[in-house]
Amino acid sequence: MAAGTATVTAAALVTDMVKLLGPERVFHKDVDLKTYTYDSSFVSQINNFTPEVVVMPTSTEEVSRIMRYADQHGVAVTPRGAGSGQTGGSVAVRGGIVMDLSAWDDIVEVDEVNMQVVVRPGVVHAELNNHISSYGLYFPPDPGSSEWATIGGMVANNASGLRAVKYGNTGQYVLGLEVVMPDGQVIRTGGLKSKALKSVSGLNLTGLFLASEGTLGVITEVRLKVWPKPPSRAIVVAYFDRLEDAAQSVLEVFKAGILPSGIEILDDGAIRSVNLFKPQLKLPEVEAAIFFEVNGSKAATEDEGRQIEEIAKRRAGSVEMATDAKRMKELWTGRQAIGAASARAKPNAARIFAGEDVCFPMAKVPEALRRIKEIGREHDTMVVIYGHIGDGNMHTAPIIDPLKPEEVEAAQRVAEDIHRLALEIGGATTGEHGVGFVRAAFMEEEHGAALTVMRRIKDCLDPKGIMNPGKIWAEE
Amino acid sequence: MAAGTATVTAAALVTDMVKLLGPERVFHKDVDLKTYTYDSSFVSQINNFTPEVVVMPTSTEEVSRIMRYADQHGVAVTPRGAGSGQTGGSVAVRGGIVMDLSAWDDIVEVDEVNMQVVVRPGVVHAELNNHISSYGLYFPPDPGSSEWATIGGMVANNASGLRAVKYGNTGQYVLGLEVVMPDGQVIRTGGLKSKALKSVSGLNLTGLFLASEGTLGVITEVRLKVWPKPPSRAIVVAYFDRLEDAAQSVLEVFKAGILPSGIEILDDGAIRSVNLFKPQLKLPEVEAAIFFEVNGSKAATEDEGRQIEEIAKRRAGSVEMATDAKRMKELWTGRQAIGAASARAKPNAARIFAGEDVCFPMAKVPEALRRIKEIGREHDTMVVIYGHIGDGNMHTAPIIDPLKPEEVEAAQRVAEDIHRLALEIGGATTGEHGVGFVRAAFMEEEHGAALTVMRRIKDCLDPKGIMNPGKIWAEE
Repeated sequence: MAAGTATVTAAALVTDMVKLLGPERVFHKDVDLKTYTYDSSFVSQINNFTPEVVVMPTSTEEVSRIMRYADQHGVAVTPRGAGSGQTGGSVAVRGGIVMDLSAWDDIVEVDEVNMQVVVRPGVVHAELNNHISSYGLYFPPDPGSSEWATIGGMVANNASGLRAVKYGNTGQYVLGLEVVMPDGQVIRTGGLKSKALKSVSGLNLTGLFLASEGTLGVITEVRLKVWPKPPSRAIVVAYFDRLEDAAQSVLEVFKAGILPSGIEILDDGAIRSVNLFKPQLKLPEVEAAIFFEVNGSKAATEDEGRQIEEIAKRRAGSVEMATDAKRMKELWTGRQAIGAASARAKPNAARIFAGEDVCFPMAKVPEALRRIKEIGREHDTMVVIYGHIGDGNMHTAPIIDPLKPEEVEAAQRVAEDIHRLALEIGGATTGEHGVGFVRAAFMEEEHGAALTVMRRIKDCLDPKGIMNPGKIWAEE
Repeated sequence: MAAGTATVTAAALVTDMVKLLGPERVFHKDVDLKTYTYDSSFVSQINNFTPEVVVMPTSTEEVSRIMRYADQHGVAVTPRGAGSGQTGGSVAVRGGIVMDLSAWDDIVEVDEVNMQVVVRPGVVHAELNNHISSYGLYFPPDPGSSEWATIGGMVANNASGLRAVKYGNTGQYVLGLEVVMPDGQVIRTGGLKSKALKSVSGLNLTGLFLASEGTLGVITEVRLKVWPKPPSRAIVVAYFDRLEDAAQSVLEVFKAGILPSGIEILDDGAIRSVNLFKPQLKLPEVEAAIFFEVNGSKAATEDEGRQIEEIAKRRAGSVEMATDAKRMKELWTGRQAIGAASARAKPNAARIFAGEDVCFPMAKVPEALRRIKEIGREHDTMVVIYGHIGDGNMHTAPIIDPLKPEEVEAAQRVAEDIHRLALEIGGATTGEHGVGFVRAAFMEEEHGAALTVMRRIKDCLDPKGIMNPGKIWAEE
């Protein structure tokens, strides 16, 4: 059988999908399926969640036909974008169909005057911004994975990233969605024909599908508000001997009435990793480096940059501000390199994604980071920390040898303890990556009775439980 | 009987409510009930939707007990804040209980470091901002009704107002809600104990309750993100002989990469009304006045103000920029006076709220405003127009003698035509005020199949249909 509740065999499922889409966009050989068994989450990489078939629809009608079929035959469907998620959200933990939407990447419309774009789910974030920059427009949320993350995935996870301090998350820009419901019905949220920049007409279905992680339907089109591109930016990087001083400086910048477009942190381990990866950067090896970015008019960025520089100097060992493009790029490289660099913190090791997206109350960030380091020590696991200190959203990276079972087990305990720490001190288990299956076990503790209301909505919109099963809710 | 499906008499309902809350916070005399038969919508004012009883709970436990009772006895419950809404949303069109939450106005917590506040639903917008300004914080959305609108009402309608261009709507600041469900169950969205500034954990219930207009549950507590207060602002007012030039200047400001905190318009009728109301202002009687506001650092606001002044001068007959507080206040008075002034456009007339909140695509604003004037002429009704041109959200005000039935009837036809115009040219029937019962008849045309999905969610969360019945969905 194709999945838990399916009424067709895997072979029949493949045959039927070929009938719907033709042979070129249906994959069922082991070698093809293998690449769909994981995303960036460590747990998916050490398991083997294999779908029966992968399909690549490129029209709403095709998606609707697939969903009608899946509904009729009780087959699980897992929508997938770039597969760059870190929660297993796009992995078919119950088998069935993986619906790969990454090839459906049309920018349907750029409406310059109405400041909005219409895109299909597979459009990559960086490609969208490259495309619309010639119109003087941009889509402000900036996930670290800009070069591969798809807009469909960003909506399904309500992604945010480096500019959320000032610009919030993806959801703040979503004006409307086309969604194929689990039974194949096609709806449009935000108004059937609307190009309005604001609407409060009817229940907020757009909001409900945000961060629904493919559990309520398939997002097949996104109408996004975009904004005039700020003409200027400035970067201030400050190096602090003490983590607490770094956190305090962030609060003092806010206190001055400044809302930077981004505030990022590298902890001592992250700084060392970057230096090992790019020795020419020679970052001072202090306890915390903070990267402030401001944007706006030239006068504004220079003024606010100077103010931030003054504020940071009160507590930092060294501070540098840059407004010219070349130096800004060099300074920002330190922040950008950490994703690739973190594994350098330990010889023959890899950085894994586990417990990597906790969000802490601003006041608790220093305490939280110290406790994460303790957790690492308790489990004899190196943990490098970086992320969006401007909103408390920290990316913690266990560095392990994934071929050593004891290190793998320790890393999983580290991730569990980090999640529990977030809940204990009033944070959230995930600031921007989502729940998937890796955090499903924490949902009851995090949400209490609200989880039952979420479940009622899920059961009402997907009564057969075929949409991305095994995510958000832990095994019954 | 107390309402359509109620199993208790009105007298028993009153007795039972007194048992739950005591006599001081339960009202049932005709004179008391009368003040709850309307809100600011014209349609509610010419009808007589009288509840059987009004209750004023001031704790979650009380709200929960009332909802358990209502669930058990099938009694309709209509939550109400200040009653300043313009859709009939807080009026008991099916009788039953009006739950007046305006007295429950505790600011539970101001958490300066975590930049968030926790408030009960009855807190008034202006009071919240007055209270937190001493912490250097502010809640950016600015409804014109700031002096009376409650935060509960703002969440229930996802209100926005004069600063939505840059700061979006109420929803972008809501981190979590406490909600009493229709059966009395109490849930907390956004995490049981979370003080995180970002979370994508679980289905977005916070988003679902935004703009749900009391149809899914009662909002009993709101956790809001607040922001550092910008230290400076500047105002530029420009007067245009032609509406099209005014609209074009707005687009040119965006094109320069500037995102003003507000962009407001007064049309010729609105300007004349303001001059009749406050003759000392002597506004130039042109076709359109545009009020730009920018905020941020002092250097930023002066720089962006100057840029806007230059851009506006290309097309405007006259332009004035102000950065000193006194002159800014004088200039802004022109915009602020319009709410009270609009009735002056015609002797012995009143301004009514009907068709007052359409939102047009930016590119269609001039065409839409000209067509609204035509609609007015067709029905021999004066229509004054003002509002948030920065996001296309226009407030249209029919000016009539409400004692003349033919003028009342004409105004209702004007409102209907304005709503149809919005749908025809790709706008929305409501940008920020909501649906209530006055726009319920347009929902099917506006949303198509999505309306059935909204209904499924409604039926799933409120199976007995007791939460604010008769709103969003037209009569079955």
